[in-house]
Amino acid sequence: METGRMLYEGKAKKLYETDDPGLLYLTYKDSLTAFNAKKKAEMAGKGELNNNISAWIFTYLKDRGVESHFIKRIDDLSQTVRPVTIVPLEVVVRNVTAGSICRRLGVPQGTPLPRPLVELYYKNDDLDDPLVLEDHALLFGWADEADLKKIKRLALQVNELLIELFSSLDIDLVDFKLEFGKDRDGRLILADEISPDTCRFWEKGTQNSLDKDRFREDLGDVLGAYREIWRRLSKRGR
Amino acid sequence: METGRMLYEGKAKKLYETDDPGLLYLTYKDSLTAFNAKKKAEMAGKGELNNNISAWIFTYLKDRGVESHFIKRIDDLSQTVRPVTIVPLEVVVRNVTAGSICRRLGVPQGTPLPRPLVELYYKNDDLDDPLVLEDHALLFGWADEADLKKIKRLALQVNELLIELFSSLDIDLVDFKLEFGKDRDGRLILADEISPDTCRFWEKGTQNSLDKDRFREDLGDVLGAYREIWRRLSKRGR
Repeated sequence: METGRMLYEGKAKKLYETDDPGLLYLTYKDSLTAFNAKKKAEMAGKGELNNNISAWIFTYLKDRGVESHFIKRIDDLSQTVRPVTIVPLEVVVRNVTAGSICRRLGVPQGTPLPRPLVELYYKNDDLDDPLVLEDHALLFGWADEADLKKIKRLALQVNELLIELFSSLDIDLVDFKLEFGKDRDGRLILADEISPDTCRFWEKGTQNSLDKDRFREDLGDVLGAYREIWRRLSKRGR
Repeated sequence: METGRMLYEGKAKKLYETDDPGLLYLTYKDSLTAFNAKKKAEMAGKGELNNNISAWIFTYLKDRGVESHFIKRIDDLSQTVRPVTIVPLEVVVRNVTAGSICRRLGVPQGTPLPRPLVELYYKNDDLDDPLVLEDHALLFGWADEADLKKIKRLALQVNELLIELFSSLDIDLVDFKLEFGKDRDGRLILADEISPDTCRFWEKGTQNSLDKDRFREDLGDVLGAYREIWRRLSKRGR
């Protein structure tokens, strides 16, 4: 496989064409950003951990019937993925209040929700990814009714699977962000990554953060937390 | 009727107890505020116009089956209203894109929507009245399923009635904000006011603003616009 033109460089990943039009090459960066890139750092080893964690989780989900763009881990920093057209919505699932929802709505941090909450954010850095209603997505053409229905169903299904997975590792899944895309056959599948960059993981009991909040809130030992997630996942059977 | 203790002073109105527990006394102020009171002015005559306009519109709606807290216009600045417990949601109905939705979502100003859009904002000045999902309102206890269903139904019904009314006055109803409250029997009814402070009115054809946008955007002759709305309403039969 030859890698070709870079198609996209994001905050945490780069995406390249390959000589196979059905295959893209995704490399994970060591960059860490928060608050829409207002806070930035480089952290040697982060890219490798997220590549491993995301590959592991996408495989775990696939084994349970949830398709994603992920095809295969290639090396420490890279994986192959299927090309998709990204739906411009960030899909957040929350089980416990934390982070932006507490700031926006003045609700206390750490309150378990009686049922999972699914939120949509319009994926647009210039606008700081604003919260949107399903009706906004429909009226402005970002998704159609069928897409939204499937996105919500998959988001809740992924939530159940990840709660179970992380619970077995003594970790509470507080919230996470998903992205979806349409493959070349028009099928809606999971895309982007699932990692401590995109999830809030709290150690059961202590509520100690094992995710990007260690960077956001200057809690120290960011890489140690990512390493701990990978340690627990990798020693667990899928 | 004796007026008693002031129960509440808002940006544009004051609410007093009376000697009748089923009746409150609402006086309209000449204050004009925008952007969550970051911009303020006094405009002699504005209170009287909004008292008249709101009384007229609430009566028009009542004649067509939509109940509100409004009972009776008392004098230039005052009306009696029924006591309600306000639902902490601002309900915005949009027919054409304008104002905050354009800033938040990067959509162009003045685009007619294929169907009316109903948005909920959590009524909280400290948080700048954030947009919320129905699920936020349900999960944080601001309203229940039945309330939300009725709120949306009434908001769309008011929209239809007001579009028809203002269309007959050569005015396009771009958007407006409603508030709802529960009366002492637990019935959900319209509350607050409906006036050029809470609606966007565009002159048909020219799209000239006849509302608070004249103040927000320093377009001049704010009071003239409010007076024009009242002139057209008051010469029209209900």
